Amino acid sequence: MAEVVDNLVWHDAAELPIRGKGWRLTKSPYDRLPPRALGFVPDGVWTLSRHCAGLHIVFKTKSPAIHVRWQLLRPELSMHHMPATGVSGLDLYGRNGKGKWRFIDNSCPNAQAGEHEFRMCGQKWGQYLLYLPLYNGLTKLEIGLPEQHKLVPLAEDQSVKPIVVYGTSITQGACASRPGTAAFSIAARQLDVPIINLGFSGSGKMEIELAEMLAELDARFYVLDNLRNMAGLVEERFEPFVRRLHKLRPDKRIVVTEDTDFRNMLPTQITAAALPIVNKLIGEGMGDILTFEPCKGMLGTDWETVIDRTHFNDIGMLRQAKVLVKMLKKYIAMT
Amino acid sequence: MAEVVDNLVWHDAAELPIRGKGWRLTKSPYDRLPPRALGFVPDGVWTLSRHCAGLHIVFKTKSPAIHVRWQLLRPELSMHHMPATGVSGLDLYGRNGKGKWRFIDNSCPNAQAGEHEFRMCGQKWGQYLLYLPLYNGLTKLEIGLPEQHKLVPLAEDQSVKPIVVYGTSITQGACASRPGTAAFSIAARQLDVPIINLGFSGSGKMEIELAEMLAELDARFYVLDNLRNMAGLVEERFEPFVRRLHKLRPDKRIVVTEDTDFRNMLPTQITAAALPIVNKLIGEGMGDILTFEPCKGMLGTDWETVIDRTHFNDIGMLRQAKVLVKMLKKYIAMT
Repeated sequence: MAEVVDNLVWHDAAELPIRGKGWRLTKSPYDRLPPRALGFVPDGVWTLSRHCAGLHIVFKTKSPAIHVRWQLLRPELSMHHMPATGVSGLDLYGRNGKGKWRFIDNSCPNAQAGEHEFRMCGQKWGQYLLYLPLYNGLTKLEIGLPEQHKLVPLAEDQSVKPIVVYGTSITQGACASRPGTAAFSIAARQLDVPIINLGFSGSGKMEIELAEMLAELDARFYVLDNLRNMAGLVEERFEPFVRRLHKLRPDKRIVVTEDTDFRNMLPTQITAAALPIVNKLIGEGMGDILTFEPCKGMLGTDWETVIDRTHFNDIGMLRQAKVLVKMLKKYIAMT
Repeated sequence: MAEVVDNLVWHDAAELPIRGKGWRLTKSPYDRLPPRALGFVPDGVWTLSRHCAGLHIVFKTKSPAIHVRWQLLRPELSMHHMPATGVSGLDLYGRNGKGKWRFIDNSCPNAQAGEHEFRMCGQKWGQYLLYLPLYNGLTKLEIGLPEQHKLVPLAEDQSVKPIVVYGTSITQGACASRPGTAAFSIAARQLDVPIINLGFSGSGKMEIELAEMLAELDARFYVLDNLRNMAGLVEERFEPFVRRLHKLRPDKRIVVTEDTDFRNMLPTQITAAALPIVNKLIGEGMGDILTFEPCKGMLGTDWETVIDRTHFNDIGMLRQAKVLVKMLKKYIAMT
């Protein structure tokens, strides 16, 4: 129900189609996993699944002003290495005449509940794209427009299957300065394809239950971007996870990304442990399905892509996105 | 005096040569302006001058471990658009065999007083470079080494005059994810030249007193990087400021940088107001001294260089640094 206050009509985002969700029916409209995941996946994964990484809303309006009003799930608006604009902020992009998405403004949250008027760019945008927070959840989100202007939500094209990415803190978006600069968000914008972000900070540990959750989704293909979280776990979990996912979705391609190192000291120990297993699985018949994507050169040679030796700053995110775009394009062409 | 605790010797950084300071004698060793600036410059400028933007310490040690212990001036460790790693963090860089500075680790502050052991890179570094916080001050800073290892401080070469930069929040480093990715820090590292950062967030407003402060420094040349803070003030202050600085330092080059826009909608209104004054001053005889440096193309065409339409993320910082390196090189060659 839209609510009118001070000539602004507030549209409840829960009633709009939220893109980037793997499951339509969720406990909160801003959750990334369905209710049955609670108690099935590890508690840490469930908690992180309530962060809105990758979720976004696309709409049209002719309004010259766009407002947002939010109630965030957690009072911790930022992390020591990631500002509130990225952890808890909303990013507005506009689609220009050439079909390119361009950044307009961030909600710059200073409080768990707040309001922001996006400063517009003085040009007409065909569509708007509103990214939800990377490392916080929402209990309420509303988009406010002057009452004479309509909000026309644009749902995802259901005929296009999403790419499903399972991964780490970096996958989830740490430490992008705002939601739009997370690498998979950049790649999805540039490729104009749906991506489901199942990055779970520090918790991309390949429990067998996660393979079952992933297999519930009718993916275009799967990207397993989680090696960084697999220190000491590769031997035990990597093969059973891939086998289970493959058994449940035998026709789906599975892409494993290489573990990164900001110094380009590759392969890392984790990659060195995983690669023989990938090769074994390929040798045993998964050659048409399973591929390994190296990251050599991805982060450049200047060592400036990280904040704390692990998590990417926006430079790292942009360089990763460039590699992702090329890589995803290749698999999109195959599917 | 060095203090030994748990086999670590703690070296008080106040007793080490701190680089990037325009004035040796300051109220706190981590201030950017001298005591006489208090009450002379606007209060806001004085407050910001206690932030350590651009200050750094260079030293040698053969220790495989480097610790830091800090007490920050302000309890607010972060800003909504800038993480604690940048606002209040310490960045450690190492100089590699080719003479290039490479990022090692950030102190990742979680408290106003704290301690961190930098994780080293598993290689020997000829020198270390420790950046102080961009948007916080320090009341105490110590570097801890295992007692068998020496700390050899490296002072600035006094025969090389520093480039003095006067500017805005962006000059001061907003919103770099950490001190090492502020544009003038990147440029100084790449060029291996001393730069004095007199960026004062929102307060680079060309009061005549600031011209007098700048003129106290025997600069290689001056960079006035403050137009973004001059909305509505250009007509009143720009010409008197430049004339005063030139009168006090008639032999010094003054470089004015163009006001930026993340959409490349240039010139901005501020630039449009300033440029005729620059041209007038050049026409009246400052042609050998005064130059204007355009920023066309500096931020690229993707609009991804800002967090909030104004302040640069690390992508913006890196792109600005690339332009700065080229620009500063030109003036370095002349002086």
